[in-house]
Amino acid sequence: MTTSDMTTIRVEHDLIGDRDVPASAYYGVHTVRAVENFPITGQTLKESADLIASLAAIKQAAAEVNVSLGLLDQQRADAIVAACIEIRDGALHDQFVVDLIQGGAGTSTNMNANEVIANRALEILGHRRGEYQHLHPNEHVNLSQSTNDVYPTALKLAAWIGVHRLVDAMAILRRAFAAKAVEFADVLKMGRTQLQDAVPMTLGQEFGTYALMLAEDEARLLEAVSLIREINLGATAIGTGITAHPHYAALVRERLSAIVGIDLVTSPDLVEATQDCGSFVQLSGVLKRVAVKLSKTCNDLRLLSSGPRAGLNEINLPARQAGSSIMPGKVNPVIPEVVNQVAFEVIGNDVTITMAAEAGQLQLNAFEPVIFYSLYRSLSHLTNACLTLEANCIRGITANRDRLRQTVEQSIGIVTALNPYIGYRNATEVALEAHHSGRGVYEILLERGLMQKEHLDAVLRPETLTRPSEKLSFS
Amino acid sequence: MTTSDMTTIRVEHDLIGDRDVPASAYYGVHTVRAVENFPITGQTLKESADLIASLAAIKQAAAEVNVSLGLLDQQRADAIVAACIEIRDGALHDQFVVDLIQGGAGTSTNMNANEVIANRALEILGHRRGEYQHLHPNEHVNLSQSTNDVYPTALKLAAWIGVHRLVDAMAILRRAFAAKAVEFADVLKMGRTQLQDAVPMTLGQEFGTYALMLAEDEARLLEAVSLIREINLGATAIGTGITAHPHYAALVRERLSAIVGIDLVTSPDLVEATQDCGSFVQLSGVLKRVAVKLSKTCNDLRLLSSGPRAGLNEINLPARQAGSSIMPGKVNPVIPEVVNQVAFEVIGNDVTITMAAEAGQLQLNAFEPVIFYSLYRSLSHLTNACLTLEANCIRGITANRDRLRQTVEQSIGIVTALNPYIGYRNATEVALEAHHSGRGVYEILLERGLMQKEHLDAVLRPETLTRPSEKLSFS
Amino acid sequence: MTTSDMTTIRVEHDLIGDRDVPASAYYGVHTVRAVENFPITGQTLKESADLIASLAAIKQAAAEVNVSLGLLDQQRADAIVAACIEIRDGALHDQFVVDLIQGGAGTSTNMNANEVIANRALEILGHRRGEYQHLHPNEHVNLSQSTNDVYPTALKLAAWIGVHRLVDAMAILRRAFAAKAVEFADVLKMGRTQLQDAVPMTLGQEFGTYALMLAEDEARLLEAVSLIREINLGATAIGTGITAHPHYAALVRERLSAIVGIDLVTSPDLVEATQDCGSFVQLSGVLKRVAVKLSKTCNDLRLLSSGPRAGLNEINLPARQAGSSIMPGKVNPVIPEVVNQVAFEVIGNDVTITMAAEAGQLQLNAFEPVIFYSLYRSLSHLTNACLTLEANCIRGITANRDRLRQTVEQSIGIVTALNPYIGYRNATEVALEAHHSGRGVYEILLERGLMQKEHLDAVLRPETLTRPSEKLSFS
Amino acid sequence: MTTSDMTTIRVEHDLIGDRDVPASAYYGVHTVRAVENFPITGQTLKESADLIASLAAIKQAAAEVNVSLGLLDQQRADAIVAACIEIRDGALHDQFVVDLIQGGAGTSTNMNANEVIANRALEILGHRRGEYQHLHPNEHVNLSQSTNDVYPTALKLAAWIGVHRLVDAMAILRRAFAAKAVEFADVLKMGRTQLQDAVPMTLGQEFGTYALMLAEDEARLLEAVSLIREINLGATAIGTGITAHPHYAALVRERLSAIVGIDLVTSPDLVEATQDCGSFVQLSGVLKRVAVKLSKTCNDLRLLSSGPRAGLNEINLPARQAGSSIMPGKVNPVIPEVVNQVAFEVIGNDVTITMAAEAGQLQLNAFEPVIFYSLYRSLSHLTNACLTLEANCIRGITANRDRLRQTVEQSIGIVTALNPYIGYRNATEVALEAHHSGRGVYEILLERGLMQKEHLDAVLRPETLTRPSEKLSFS
Repeated sequence: MTTSDMTTIRVEHDLIGDRDVPASAYYGVHTVRAVENFPITGQTLKESADLIASLAAIKQAAAEVNVSLGLLDQQRADAIVAACIEIRDGALHDQFVVDLIQGGAGTSTNMNANEVIANRALEILGHRRGEYQHLHPNEHVNLSQSTNDVYPTALKLAAWIGVHRLVDAMAILRRAFAAKAVEFADVLKMGRTQLQDAVPMTLGQEFGTYALMLAEDEARLLEAVSLIREINLGATAIGTGITAHPHYAALVRERLSAIVGIDLVTSPDLVEATQDCGSFVQLSGVLKRVAVKLSKTCNDLRLLSSGPRAGLNEINLPARQAGSSIMPGKVNPVIPEVVNQVAFEVIGNDVTITMAAEAGQLQLNAFEPVIFYSLYRSLSHLTNACLTLEANCIRGITANRDRLRQTVEQSIGIVTALNPYIGYRNATEVALEAHHSGRGVYEILLERGLMQKEHLDAVLRPETLTRPSEKLSFS
Repeated sequence: MTTSDMTTIRVEHDLIGDRDVPASAYYGVHTVRAVENFPITGQTLKESADLIASLAAIKQAAAEVNVSLGLLDQQRADAIVAACIEIRDGALHDQFVVDLIQGGAGTSTNMNANEVIANRALEILGHRRGEYQHLHPNEHVNLSQSTNDVYPTALKLAAWIGVHRLVDAMAILRRAFAAKAVEFADVLKMGRTQLQDAVPMTLGQEFGTYALMLAEDEARLLEAVSLIREINLGATAIGTGITAHPHYAALVRERLSAIVGIDLVTSPDLVEATQDCGSFVQLSGVLKRVAVKLSKTCNDLRLLSSGPRAGLNEINLPARQAGSSIMPGKVNPVIPEVVNQVAFEVIGNDVTITMAAEAGQLQLNAFEPVIFYSLYRSLSHLTNACLTLEANCIRGITANRDRLRQTVEQSIGIVTALNPYIGYRNATEVALEAHHSGRGVYEILLERGLMQKEHLDAVLRPETLTRPSEKLSFS
Repeated sequence: MTTSDMTTIRVEHDLIGDRDVPASAYYGVHTVRAVENFPITGQTLKESADLIASLAAIKQAAAEVNVSLGLLDQQRADAIVAACIEIRDGALHDQFVVDLIQGGAGTSTNMNANEVIANRALEILGHRRGEYQHLHPNEHVNLSQSTNDVYPTALKLAAWIGVHRLVDAMAILRRAFAAKAVEFADVLKMGRTQLQDAVPMTLGQEFGTYALMLAEDEARLLEAVSLIREINLGATAIGTGITAHPHYAALVRERLSAIVGIDLVTSPDLVEATQDCGSFVQLSGVLKRVAVKLSKTCNDLRLLSSGPRAGLNEINLPARQAGSSIMPGKVNPVIPEVVNQVAFEVIGNDVTITMAAEAGQLQLNAFEPVIFYSLYRSLSHLTNACLTLEANCIRGITANRDRLRQTVEQSIGIVTALNPYIGYRNATEVALEAHHSGRGVYEILLERGLMQKEHLDAVLRPETLTRPSEKLSFS
Repeated sequence: MTTSDMTTIRVEHDLIGDRDVPASAYYGVHTVRAVENFPITGQTLKESADLIASLAAIKQAAAEVNVSLGLLDQQRADAIVAACIEIRDGALHDQFVVDLIQGGAGTSTNMNANEVIANRALEILGHRRGEYQHLHPNEHVNLSQSTNDVYPTALKLAAWIGVHRLVDAMAILRRAFAAKAVEFADVLKMGRTQLQDAVPMTLGQEFGTYALMLAEDEARLLEAVSLIREINLGATAIGTGITAHPHYAALVRERLSAIVGIDLVTSPDLVEATQDCGSFVQLSGVLKRVAVKLSKTCNDLRLLSSGPRAGLNEINLPARQAGSSIMPGKVNPVIPEVVNQVAFEVIGNDVTITMAAEAGQLQLNAFEPVIFYSLYRSLSHLTNACLTLEANCIRGITANRDRLRQTVEQSIGIVTALNPYIGYRNATEVALEAHHSGRGVYEILLERGLMQKEHLDAVLRPETLTRPSEKLSFS
């Protein structure tokens, strides 16, 4: 080895043997090996700032509790805590270089954090990186911990943040739909079932539905996220708490809650909690529900705005870009389309998460990395999808009021409103005649003398058509 | 047509035209056409007694409310109610002959019910089947209703029953696991992570986990089922309540709640409620979670009972049948295996339900039949799986106590307990020597003089190994 | 036990102990235990006549080969063969009573067959059922076999039959689409991309596409089914062929091919073949592809027939039943809707099959029963879906020719055809003016003097619009 | 606007209006709008060099054909071709900045390519970027093309490359398994079915299976990839070929084949080909099959290497990194674990692709971007997984030969080999006695006098146990 090499690398040791580490790196031998072992996606831990910050928060809480229990000296603890705070503030994220999809049940993630924190703490203490005899990634930074409690807890904290970010985006989108519901409250149109003309409604009712679906999904997400407040810190290796102080679990939960501002709960059975991925499956199931509804909504928007001349042409989405490289003037529903695609991705991710959860064995699920990878993408892509849908589509939607009124006037479906007055069988005959002749229901009813004109007009008023109403009495 | 034909058929009429109906049938023309249109699975409505009873309960409630609102005369209502009560008591289920997977968004199911009830009510009133001029399937039995509110409400009632039946089965299974947790509370064994020997635990802790997972899933199911108490009766065609009396929705909810004994809630927005399948998606998502955990549990049982000589051989599942047509004396884990398969089916059903929910368009989801078909199978198969798992497997499990004790004594993993005393690095060296030499950790520790024998014995007591504990002080 | 009991039951013995069997039953103790162990779906082996016939064919072939190898005497073999032929002809199917979803990797299915065949053969030989000392289910009927080679081979034969039945149904459907393609060859309409008006095409081109998609899928299915001709008879327990005569595998393949009329292939590596479910996964993947395309086609049909007044209203599906219990005269696309639902089921089944295949361990996949259960339903439901779609929908489709012509005449999209003459930028401006003014492209082009009328007419002829064509030269 | 601004931006125009574009950018207004519209994943086109190169190849082929048909002048064509060649050689990839998940059916991808190529060609011609009057992205670069033929063709070319890269990686992995099969050809061990001891086999047979599974999957992939050689260039907007020269399709296929070195085929029906995603669904289905088998293989490896003392402990995977942050000396099967996770991801991606394909409507599937996004990740992650599995795991596997021999000697399962000599019922009794007494089968057989010692030894030779063999004759 030349002198020059000596300045650019340092040598670290693990159970495999010696290994060169870049001298400038804050990570160490365990991280280097993990990078070699898992060259899978090219997306590394640093893509999820939430996960890194969550890991640092846990390490900070552990160090503080370890001091208070007399397990760690104040000086080392101070250095660890200082390093953690820096990382939570955004420092050193580029040192988290392990692939998000990794074997080892998250051990490499935990060790990447232990090593970066240890080396930064060593610097703070005036030592050089790698001088672990002064402060050791496992013995001090990881003290009272195991990957098996640290990693799932970090995933949960990161997911908690991601879910709240999504709920905020959904609320923004929901309010845009609700504003349109108000704007379109008086726009009468034909409702449809099974794509066939059904009975009248207002465009406001239609958009109000989209707002309400989001509101319900927000509520479901907040329920699901409350389950992931339950953590297993103190479980150590398999949940029995081996090597952990009896008071550690309660203290670290309390301290971590304060640091991250979430009211965390320690699982009542840490053996169960350590192997169980149920809360991730539940959360992903709810995200899938959100995806299903968003996709359905976007399908509707694309259908209602189809045209401009050979489609339903009921509403106009704002033009966002030229729609075609060949068809001049074509404008496409590009924003709903991208939301549909995110929905399909989220539904696929749910299958991935389901399989990974099912594959857990005995005291641990080794596949939590792909669970987080999938969950994290579902959360962030859904958030982005809601925001672009609101900003670049819903806000700018306009209604083709004349066209909509026309479809109601020409419709056969209004005959349903007459069931209580002329009976289902008479109404069916009127409908069939209208359909076969192409004529209007209104004139056929009058022609057949089934109702008087003023009665008919009363029954066919918009207010009567679009809400429950007592049978009018024409005496 | 001969006289003989005339006695065996009757002719009914719909918008397509005339159609022969078997004279003995309680169903009518709409049902006959549906049977012809949907020859898909061979599994008909009569397979789900819960669904038929739920439909009858809704029709009964509607008739009673229609009378109270002056929309239906007492005599017809009484006949309808009497017919519904008979059906709820199990009569005429063989008249529900439409395939469970059907087009038409459930219209054929609703019409099958309307027709059977109408014809039975006609009989009660002294008329003959088919004499709809006296009492009409649409005009009287279906009064104030639409398939679009009746059908999803019936699905929800049936699902409610199915979920509670499942929760009961899960509780039976859970209690069996809990009993084993008590029975095995003192059986020390090696815990495993990533299939590698980790640290000691008790077999009781292992079985306690399975009990707790079920308890949590029962809680999640009860949450999910509370969402499906929300119904949309009164919505009629698309949720606007067209043709429905303004008081109808509230009254029918109240009456139906009393009949079925469920505290039902009317959705605050019936337009939204009529098109939304979110609660089914949510419920299916939770069923998938149940499936994931049950499958994981059965994977564990099969693994722990592997052997008898070349496997882990930690527990014995009761022999239930000869395991092989060729290998004499072979006994297989057939009960967990069937549960695994049900779990895979439930997870597949969830994808079906997801796609069907996503495919809803505008004011209605036309694909609710396959949602129910899938949900109903998930519920009933999971229920059956839990019951056979309890009765034919868990109850009879025994532990190979000697074998389990041996694995702990020979294990390297107990070295973890010594981290606080000798440090992670020393412990690693001991572990590596044990691994390479095939010797025991205990003797190596003593040989290296790392701990005194009495200290070592104190640290390695079962109580210390399987729960959090303060670092012992050896002064 | 009373005398009466003695006449209605017989006692059989297995490794669990003694067990009553109904005296009238052709099945025996192994089947009785399986029925008790697997009360899951209520759907038993007898639902799949193809599977039962396939099992009988295998047992027949084995008996014949065992005789030829001197392993079985002629008299017993003759009785076994006679029993198998009866079963293949439809007899005794009601004796196959084990649930389709079962643990034990199909052992119970194989034993159910062994027992029914043995008892029928005993009768043929003049003995009574249960007198296995004369002819034994395992020692004679199952001779040279194991569940692990018999069961997957039977599944493959049954799947082979099911796939060919499906391909036949698809061909019927394809021809119906092709006939419509001819019928509509001259009907000009607007093509659409992303639901927005694009450029003209013919309705014949649209329907021709549906025919061609089916043709391609038929080809893919025939490719996939050729993979399942590869069987593992002779593998016995795990593929090593233990207890099997060295010539057995080749002889039984030859004999079975002759019996079932399929050119079977013995896998070159029976250890691999015994554990591998790849061909089922592949087949299910292709069924999923069929489902995707059928569903897309039905989505299109429902969209094109939407209306009658507020929809696209381009084609009419034949009315098959009244569409609504409340909306008089409403007709819905019920046949495409049921096909969509079958497609969703098939896609869900594919996930079930995937998980079951992935869960195989070491030398066997214990989850083949749920693979077959899912595959069998996918095959039969898709077959039924194709047949009802052809008979009850496609055949009767008509076109609204006036409406279609109108949409082309009013369209903006025809401006695309002018790109080569006036350039993309000019064409865009014309399109935008048309869109904003509501006027026609034709008049704007003339008004702007961008093209002469006769040139424009030449470019806008249907033949020019709906196929590639050289740029016309207007000199 | 200040002078400084004027030098850093240029203004471009589209149908929405004017828009600033960074002066340094090779992309233009359409790309800028797309970046704003689709801020979804943060992963942009530049992540897939294969896709960019494929787009450039298509544009090059189109330009060359356009010249030959007299549709484009030589000078512009030369500049376009030069730009395309630069891009295929790796230049300007950083200018492909649109998100991989995008609305608009790929229009933004196509326009991003058109703009970058146009601007680079402008430079080559001595003009400045944005001076489209000299060479226009749509009118010249995109001439004779539409997104609807360019985009799917580019996806197919990129997928073709990706599949071959995967097949190469699988072959490397297969050869490693095959080498182990040879190395372990003489290592006798117990085979297992349903995790229970079955009958003997060799470890070589076990590893040979993994090699063969890969070989079969390679063959399936090459079949599937042959389907994606079918392209739709010449289809233009919807497959009718509007604006395309009649000879264009054939010429561009020929030219493109030469450029990319793939024997491409033009679809016989371009309308069908333009809307059909069947070949992607098929390919993804086969990738799912690969994932299922790889995952099963890795499950087996993890199981066989479980231990070191309380597991099966049959083989040793090479230690790749410290397995635990808390358990000293623990080594985990981290490489198989990461492969399992990739498999779960691929299976989830297949669901995404399936849904996206099903959602296509009428003449186009707008969701091809997410299909490619998912397919591309499946392909590249599987490739990486195979490579790390080979290099970091399979190559270094060793067998615990003593342990394996012991399990066979102690096994009960060898009794199966005696069926032909002592019968299934006698063999069952011996097996049960061995099981209950804990004694060996060998001694019980001798004790019971069922076979003579020398006959027993002959039957239990490894060669007899692990392959088919004639019944030995002991006279």
